[in-house]
Order: sequence, then structure tokens, then C-alpha cells
Amino acid sequence: MRYPAPVDRLVAEFARLPGIGRRSAERLAFHIMKSSSPEALKLAEAIQEVKRSVKHCSICFNFTDESACALCMGTGRDASTIMVVEQPKDLLAMEFTGMFKGVYHVLMGRISPLEGVGPADVTIADLLRRIDEPARNAQGRAVSEVILALNPTLEGDGTAMYLAEELHQRSVKVTRLARGIASGSQLEMAHKSVLADALEGRQAL
Amino acid sequence: MRYPAPVDRLVAEFARLPGIGRRSAERLAFHIMKSSSPEALKLAEAIQEVKRSVKHCSICFNFTDESACALCMGTGRDASTIMVVEQPKDLLAMEFTGMFKGVYHVLMGRISPLEGVGPADVTIADLLRRIDEPARNAQGRAVSEVILALNPTLEGDGTAMYLAEELHQRSVKVTRLARGIASGSQLEMAHKSVLADALEGRQAL
Repeated sequence: MRYPAPVDRLVAEFARLPGIGRRSAERLAFHIMKSSSPEALKLAEAIQEVKRSVKHCSICFNFTDESACALCMGTGRDASTIMVVEQPKDLLAMEFTGMFKGVYHVLMGRISPLEGVGPADVTIADLLRRIDEPARNAQGRAVSEVILALNPTLEGDGTAMYLAEELHQRSVKVTRLARGIASGSQLEMAHKSVLADALEGRQAL
Repeated sequence: MRYPAPVDRLVAEFARLPGIGRRSAERLAFHIMKSSSPEALKLAEAIQEVKRSVKHCSICFNFTDESACALCMGTGRDASTIMVVEQPKDLLAMEFTGMFKGVYHVLMGRISPLEGVGPADVTIADLLRRIDEPARNAQGRAVSEVILALNPTLEGDGTAMYLAEELHQRSVKVTRLARGIASGSQLEMAHKSVLADALEGRQAL
């Protein structure tokens, strides 16, 4: 005794999503079965629409439904400064601060030798081309600074090291996000590596 | 700055699923965007296939992709005993025990005055018709016993009371699942209502 085959298939498809276990997948499938058809089909259509229309920006690799994203196409941003992030959601997190006025480059991952992800598997070559050939950059601008905003992890740091080496061969300023204690956190709870970063990067008052 | 509209729509659709918050919905949408098209579209197709082909069994209201479900159509079950459950997943839980050889009736909910769910909103009329007109029951068999296997909650108990009253007007034996301490649990952790049930229903050894 099992569910009908189409139900089993739906449960299996839900269970392949990240963070969705077998029981959650069953709950979601039952929800789909109980929903009205138009309601349930909206999800199917939203998936199909995304796969049909959402592409990567041809300049920065952010998600877009145009050929280039609104940030690269707009004129309100300083295209001479490129911030390099791992994922589109990192870009969005930075945009929420409203503090950055430059443009982005999304690597779509990071170098991870353990997972078999090399420099060619992320968009590093495209970043270097934006610097080497200003016509390929947003607004056709020459790049003067690259800010590395990778995750402060082993892989993120490794990727930043690799990028810095490549970028230093070009006449471009290379910086990375500051390391230190996080605003709103507690010193006694901070990891020793966080405190070490904070001490090393101490700022004059 | 937001995601492109199709991405926003997909996030919103995921977020309408039960137990999926805004952040999980974003994670799922990003997973869909990163997956290969055939992989991602499989989920959309599974949803559409379920809405197209999965119906309720015309006899017991279990999910099926035929006009009646395998349990009602098969001849290996004792159709004179009907177990009443709230949801198809309750049916499945009971089937996994392998202990029940009768057939089922799925109410597709329970009476809940607080939520505005009355007897007409669940499949009670269909159950009574199976008893009143044996031709409408699986295998055309007359019903001799109805086992109420509703959830041991306020609503489940209320629904069982209502059903028992209706069924007692018919010449059919009415039983419900035993209440008591759950195998594998600990007495000291048991709720007082569980212990009261267990004491009241104590069995001779």
C-alpha cells in the first residue's frame, strides 16, 4: 500500500529540495492535493516562469529577466568600483544596507578544491575581462577598485587570495571587507579568531 | 532593488506552503534557479500531474488515480468492517502496521465548530450511504462494524460522538481505538488525561 504514483513522485520531488525531509515533503504534497487547482498550479507556473525568463546578467551575473541587470544598466551607480560576492543573495544583503554605490560581480560560487570547484567553475574569467576590457564593464567604465566581499570562510578566503593575486597583476586597487567583532555581539561569546581579527585590525580613535 | 519579478513570484508561492517561511522560500527559489532546467521543471510537472490525475476514491475518499482506490477495488480486504479516519495519511499510518484487514473511510477532515467545519463539510453522508446501501460499499458488502480511528483531540472526539450517534441508529457495531499509555512512553511523563484513560480502560490479565 503506497500513495498513487503521481503523489509518490510529487513527494520525491519536494524531498529533493534543500532542507525538506521526507515528512515535510509529504506534508507539502498533501497541501498541494488539498488546495484548489488554480492555487496549486500557481507554484508550478512560477517555477516554469523562473526557468523560462530568469537569466544571469551578462555583465555581473546577478539574476535578471533582462539581458543585463538593473544595477549594471542604470546610470546612478559608480561602475569604476566592483564588489565581488559569491551569490546573488549576498548582493541583495549588501544592497539592503544602502551603503554601496558601485556595481557588483557575482562569482556564482567560490573556489573549493575539496568539492572540485576550480577557478574556471566560477565567473572569475568574466570579472578579469571586465577589468581588462572596460567596454565589457557596466557603462563601459574602467575599473579602479575591486572590493572582495566573499564569505569569511576557508573557501571564501582562499578565493579572495586567488583573486587578489590575479588582480594585483592589473593596475587596480584591491580591498576586502573589514574583519572584527560584529556590532551587537558580545565579546565573551566571540570566537578567538574573531577577537584576533579585531585586535589585528584595531582602529585609531 | 529586489529580485526580478518572476523570482519574487516564486518566492511568494513557496512561502504560501505550510511550514515554509520567507527565508526558506528564498532558499528554495535559489535552489530552483541554480538547478538545471530539466531538474527544476520536474517539480512543476509533478505538481501539475497530481492536480490532473489524483482524485478521491469514489467509495472511501482515499487518494487514487483510478475511480476507486486499490483497497476498495481489491478482493483481499474484509469490506464489512470500515475504519473511519480523518486524513489519507492516517490511513497510511494504519496500513503500515499491517494489522487491519478491513476497508477505510476518509472523512477529509473533522467536525470543528470553532473553524466553521460542520458535518456536511466532511464525508459523513457518504459513509452513512455506504452503510445504508451496501451496493455503494466496497465489494457491495453490507457493513457490520465501524471502527472510529479519529485523532484523540477535542475535534476528533466530538466528530466520533456525532458519528456514534448517527451509527447507533443503524444496526452496526461501533468501536473506537483504545486509549491508554503509549507503548515505549514513560508513566512519569504521561499527561494526567492519558493516565486517566489508561486506568479507566484497564485490561484483565
